[in-house]
Amino acid sequence: MAPYRSKPLAEGDLLAAIDLGSNSFHLIVARVEHGEVRPVHTLAERVQLGAGLKKSKLDSDAIARGLACLARFGQLLDSVEPRRIRVVGTNALRQAKNYRSFTEPAAKLLGVPVDVVYGREEARLVYLGVAHTLADDEHSRLVIDIGGGSTEFIVGQRFEPIRLQSLQLGCVSYTQRFFPKGVISKQHFKNAYDQARLEVSHIRKQFDARHWKECVGSSGTLQAIEALAKSSGLTSGGIDSAALKALRKALLGFETMADIKLEGLSEKRRDVIAAGVAITQAIFDGLDIDQMRTSSGALREGVIYDLMGRLSHEDVRERSIAAMLQRYKSDETVAELVSRRVGYLAERVQDAWKLSDANIELLRWAGRSHEIGIAIAQKHYHRHSAYLLLNSDLPGFSQNEQEIMATLVKGLQGKIRDDLLEDIPKNEREKISRMIALLRLAVVFKYVESLVTLPDFSVEVSDNTLTLTFPDGWHDLHPLTTWEIKESEAAMKKLGVKLKLA
Amino acid sequence: MAPYRSKPLAEGDLLAAIDLGSNSFHLIVARVEHGEVRPVHTLAERVQLGAGLKKSKLDSDAIARGLACLARFGQLLDSVEPRRIRVVGTNALRQAKNYRSFTEPAAKLLGVPVDVVYGREEARLVYLGVAHTLADDEHSRLVIDIGGGSTEFIVGQRFEPIRLQSLQLGCVSYTQRFFPKGVISKQHFKNAYDQARLEVSHIRKQFDARHWKECVGSSGTLQAIEALAKSSGLTSGGIDSAALKALRKALLGFETMADIKLEGLSEKRRDVIAAGVAITQAIFDGLDIDQMRTSSGALREGVIYDLMGRLSHEDVRERSIAAMLQRYKSDETVAELVSRRVGYLAERVQDAWKLSDANIELLRWAGRSHEIGIAIAQKHYHRHSAYLLLNSDLPGFSQNEQEIMATLVKGLQGKIRDDLLEDIPKNEREKISRMIALLRLAVVFKYVESLVTLPDFSVEVSDNTLTLTFPDGWHDLHPLTTWEIKESEAAMKKLGVKLKLA
Repeated sequence: MAPYRSKPLAEGDLLAAIDLGSNSFHLIVARVEHGEVRPVHTLAERVQLGAGLKKSKLDSDAIARGLACLARFGQLLDSVEPRRIRVVGTNALRQAKNYRSFTEPAAKLLGVPVDVVYGREEARLVYLGVAHTLADDEHSRLVIDIGGGSTEFIVGQRFEPIRLQSLQLGCVSYTQRFFPKGVISKQHFKNAYDQARLEVSHIRKQFDARHWKECVGSSGTLQAIEALAKSSGLTSGGIDSAALKALRKALLGFETMADIKLEGLSEKRRDVIAAGVAITQAIFDGLDIDQMRTSSGALREGVIYDLMGRLSHEDVRERSIAAMLQRYKSDETVAELVSRRVGYLAERVQDAWKLSDANIELLRWAGRSHEIGIAIAQKHYHRHSAYLLLNSDLPGFSQNEQEIMATLVKGLQGKIRDDLLEDIPKNEREKISRMIALLRLAVVFKYVESLVTLPDFSVEVSDNTLTLTFPDGWHDLHPLTTWEIKESEAAMKKLGVKLKLA
Repeated sequence: MAPYRSKPLAEGDLLAAIDLGSNSFHLIVARVEHGEVRPVHTLAERVQLGAGLKKSKLDSDAIARGLACLARFGQLLDSVEPRRIRVVGTNALRQAKNYRSFTEPAAKLLGVPVDVVYGREEARLVYLGVAHTLADDEHSRLVIDIGGGSTEFIVGQRFEPIRLQSLQLGCVSYTQRFFPKGVISKQHFKNAYDQARLEVSHIRKQFDARHWKECVGSSGTLQAIEALAKSSGLTSGGIDSAALKALRKALLGFETMADIKLEGLSEKRRDVIAAGVAITQAIFDGLDIDQMRTSSGALREGVIYDLMGRLSHEDVRERSIAAMLQRYKSDETVAELVSRRVGYLAERVQDAWKLSDANIELLRWAGRSHEIGIAIAQKHYHRHSAYLLLNSDLPGFSQNEQEIMATLVKGLQGKIRDDLLEDIPKNEREKISRMIALLRLAVVFKYVESLVTLPDFSVEVSDNTLTLTFPDGWHDLHPLTTWEIKESEAAMKKLGVKLKLA
């Protein structure tokens, strides 16, 4: 399904991506040239959002640092169309219970939504970014991206990730946890290494050297380690175990992070390099890696390539929904029927209710997948569908998109519970309620076998009143459906929609 | 997997089943003869548990009525071995939030557990009971069981149910809802019929006449309708639309339920027959049924046959778990490994911790299925596994068994949350905590590739202290596992288990 009313990408168009990492924020603005993208501007700032994460909450200093950085980034975005900008948040925002205290002002500041993505989605995007920097050969590779809060592991071939994993180990969080007060010691190194080794042991069976031919490191941490190894003459490029051991020894020559002076190490990497080396050693040992080369491709490039796909009608989200329908053996006819009908209803009210094209896409996808939960149990299947939409690995979707789809489907049957919209930001609730009302209405018609053609009735909306006008005699022919629509009035009212039949 | 230490059934053995229906309670005691079962005693009492269901709570009168009935039933159970008795609760207990206020004293009174089963499991058992009363021919049949609170629909062939469904419509609940004060009127009939028709419309596509050759009614309601039709000369057996219409007309001749006098209608059916006729008409019209015959087979017989299977090592629960592993493409090697290891651990401590054979079976099944949630997402997969174990249609399992398996798996990783055992009755919590500890321990070893043979260490338990003794040098060979076991100490402590390594 194509994004609604979308215009295709043209030569010279600008795209932009911002990566809100736990260690650094990155901006890339790129231009479409001959169907490829070329960076026009790149910016990086060490915001250390992850360092401001205390008891699963971002502190106000970290939020202020992040917003100040985005205010600067924002100046470069004026020339880019909002729908061609994507802002992606990773581990620090995933972990922060109060992440909206950052994402909401950030979205306002930038004029575009901020998408917090799951770890495996981050891994998919990293792989996409890295794969575009590598030769297009057949052999499988392991890509590793050590971030500030999480590390992503991807085994893939060409542009296709085969296995994705995201572990909770990162150079910022490990520095805080295992190198208290920045003190460097053998014991601190060992603690960090042991914990990382333990984490890595859980993915060993699926990611160790039996599964790939080549290992590629992405991320600032691995590039910094490579630069250090090179400038000390330990390697002529790439990273190996001997170089890591030598680096560890060199680092143990300093008492604290602040004392570290090594050629080739930038000041902004100084505080996290020890944790980075410990994590890298644990990964090398845990996955039997002898040799790693690095790539400059990263999350931000992956986001750009993914955005290109979305804008060129190759939306990976479409594939994810289709795959889920197959996995749970959902009835494709019903799925298509409800998706089309909710799309039809939404188009009719789009202007009056200020639904964005993205809103309508989510409605269609929610409609297509609303029955997947039947695979778990028929009873309360909509709740199971909502559970799957919220919790499944769905490549291409952000957490927020999955939350919205889950909420739409959760509101499909029975009474509307008071806490249904609890997790939706207040300023979005009216819109989401109306979207639920549209989806409920679309679902009512799936039981009417003869109603597969559109349009069979007309829809009008004025403020919160939705008027359905049916042809003469329709109600007599479909008494059950008429009754079911009327039965849904109480729920509609709770959703703030007044339903009128004419 | 065979029930632990189970003895096979022998000629002459007695089996018993109690069906705690929303309208009536039924008892059947049966004897094994030539591999078949023959009823020895049957009892039925009209308890109307469902009539005591107010705002999803059973009132104290209904609970007292039910327990008094069970006290009488109990006298017939003295000669039956407890593990050959099964007590099954249906819709009224499914709906009641305070169902434990009934099931706990009931279990105490009878000396055996009380299993509340899901609607589809009830449907499966009904079909099993009915199928044993029918000719063993090839054609597919629709079996309908109209109960006091729910109605079960099953399309099946021979002894195999193909589609199962349970709808919230029953003769007790509909009497209360649509025939207030027992007044019979055209409008009341219409209201009951319309609502039932609406419910039935949702299953029409999968259950209407295109899907079966023969329709068979089970349950007291349908047998009463058949008896009425027969004694008024409307049919010579079975039920058809004309007979239903005539019965409705006859019933409209009385002002209230109390006034009804019809030949062939027992007094205990009098109050619910009008709702029964309205529901039956809606089902006939909704599913295009012309003709129905009835069967005396019912839930209680199904429970007996199911019990026979369990005791003869043909446990349908085993099949359900295997099917789930396949559906979610779970790694069978890991599943088997963890299942065997938790079984091994549990056997060692069975006597000291008073684990029943049934407890060990649940542990093995939980171990086998603990990774199914990976199909949803790798992150927090144990929570997804728990969700699937709790919410899936798992033929053969009671709600309580599914709850316990889900709790076991939910406690598998990370910290033990304070509310983990919230839904487990207080007197079961110590045991369930210990079972979680055993399962956690078994799962730690799945990451150790070399440890596939049993026994590789010995297990001893004294009170709440669990001592693992490893061969010399083991810890040096498996430092990660040793560490992981030690890392789990905090969780074990919270589970009330003191872990000692020797």
